[in-house]
Amino acid sequence: MMPAPTLSLAQIEAAHERIRPHVHLTPVLTCASLDALTGATLFFKAENFQKIGAFKARGATNAIFALAPEIAAKGVITHSSGNHGAAVARAARLRGITAHVVMPSNTPKIKVANVEAQGGRVVTCEPNLASREAAAARVQAETGATLIHPYNDLHVMAGQGTAALELVIAVPDLDLMLCPVGGGGLLSGTAVATKGRSPQTRVIGVEPAQADDAARSFHGGSLLPSGKPDTIADGLRGALGDLTYAEITTHVDDIVTVSEAAIIAAMRLIWERMKIIVEPSCAVPLAGLLENRIPDIAGRRIGIILTGGNVDLDRLPWQTA
Amino acid sequence: MMPAPTLSLAQIEAAHERIRPHVHLTPVLTCASLDALTGATLFFKAENFQKIGAFKARGATNAIFALAPEIAAKGVITHSSGNHGAAVARAARLRGITAHVVMPSNTPKIKVANVEAQGGRVVTCEPNLASREAAAARVQAETGATLIHPYNDLHVMAGQGTAALELVIAVPDLDLMLCPVGGGGLLSGTAVATKGRSPQTRVIGVEPAQADDAARSFHGGSLLPSGKPDTIADGLRGALGDLTYAEITTHVDDIVTVSEAAIIAAMRLIWERMKIIVEPSCAVPLAGLLENRIPDIAGRRIGIILTGGNVDLDRLPWQTA
Repeated sequence: MMPAPTLSLAQIEAAHERIRPHVHLTPVLTCASLDALTGATLFFKAENFQKIGAFKARGATNAIFALAPEIAAKGVITHSSGNHGAAVARAARLRGITAHVVMPSNTPKIKVANVEAQGGRVVTCEPNLASREAAAARVQAETGATLIHPYNDLHVMAGQGTAALELVIAVPDLDLMLCPVGGGGLLSGTAVATKGRSPQTRVIGVEPAQADDAARSFHGGSLLPSGKPDTIADGLRGALGDLTYAEITTHVDDIVTVSEAAIIAAMRLIWERMKIIVEPSCAVPLAGLLENRIPDIAGRRIGIILTGGNVDLDRLPWQTA
Repeated sequence: MMPAPTLSLAQIEAAHERIRPHVHLTPVLTCASLDALTGATLFFKAENFQKIGAFKARGATNAIFALAPEIAAKGVITHSSGNHGAAVARAARLRGITAHVVMPSNTPKIKVANVEAQGGRVVTCEPNLASREAAAARVQAETGATLIHPYNDLHVMAGQGTAALELVIAVPDLDLMLCPVGGGGLLSGTAVATKGRSPQTRVIGVEPAQADDAARSFHGGSLLPSGKPDTIADGLRGALGDLTYAEITTHVDDIVTVSEAAIIAAMRLIWERMKIIVEPSCAVPLAGLLENRIPDIAGRRIGIILTGGNVDLDRLPWQTA
């Protein structure tokens, strides 16, 4: 049985108060050149300037600071080796508790170093799902640490929604809000925050066509498993969870998909015109505008969540083609 | 005979009022990670977010809007094919006059397109100095257009100084102000603005060791010609002019030089840690801190002018080595 949607604007506002001392209130950027190119007025929420370089700092910080003291004291655990892992390690350090981060032995050194730099305790496992789950279960049994899921968790979803909350407070009259979709934590929070503060704003998820489980689930009416995601947008390869699916089917107006070529072109445009470093996932909403996947944008005021800026500068997508 | 220094804080303040409607008041950025690395507190004036992607918009706009109407009506001319050329074309368009931009026939297409996109009239010449000067002289004779020099011009220098003026207004208690040096227009304006508002702030120019004419002139006590500049910092290959030399010897406390390797490392650090796109010239002051060319920085509050963000994304310095 699927859960009912339960995320509320009040939870996101509470998350905002809770995490405010620990994360950046990121700027909202505009770009005359991209406005001219799209015919719309774009407002970019620059989470690439967020702590740890991504919006993930918001959800992890909310989940960890929401724990009761006696639960928190036993530590937290996650098996994300990416931005969520670094975000959990950082938030645990700020709260003064231990973060165990389970990582397969073939994890790139830079990711291990990022987690360790935040004070996380790295637990190495074999590079397969069974070994990862066994390692996590063993640490949980030994320590009583709480699992912080990267997206299928109400506190994480509420925390991620604070980026859109700040955007709709700063720009209250948006016609559209565009948000990339991977596991759906960001889109869930974005939809609830946006509709709660600004019911007339349409909320549209944008997903790589080559990792389109959310679009298929949304339009098919049931939660489908991931196919074989194969996209340059490495932050969007995850599949929806039952909690994020429930919020998204209730609050999101549409989910559209975009090509890999459009993602790379949009990413390069943001770098060239806005002079900021964003990861491929950030470029997915702009790719939707460039590929005309979103109707009726002429003259519209459009919010776009830029998710993060952690990119391998030795391997840029337009150079590895 | 060398000219006496004549640039004043009042001229820079007047420039600020004049150009305010036409350029961005760029943000001042901080970065906890780079503060930790240097042991100082850094304030970056982000001219990479300026119109046309560089501080050059300031000087060109000031020079062109300061022209008397009957002079302006005859148009302006420059032979810079880089940021200054685009800045002159843009400012002329805003003032409603013609900008002639003399460019050698081997100029990269992207630079020609940038000037044309701003409404500039491109005048092609052979790729040598004699042809360039002849083309410029011919256009001036035909039209009466005013030459807007890229740096050896008091109005241009005053305009460039408005970036530092905004920085010392935003952060009034700087111990140090660091600024890259090429032709010296930015450093002249920066020094006069900084010393005028905040006399106790030391102003230090930083220059690539492989394009060190300003350092040699400054320390040698006479204006020396450029050697054979060979630096990745393409914005800093010019040599000082007599007007910029006069300001710099009067108002600047020191000029230090940095290696190419340090420039590339500093540029990459700014990209990775600050998530912004800056050109190599921007990285020269941070390179000076990383190479310990500037003494006594522990705990100091240091302003750094980031000059611009126009970079060829197909040829990044750490990839073409």
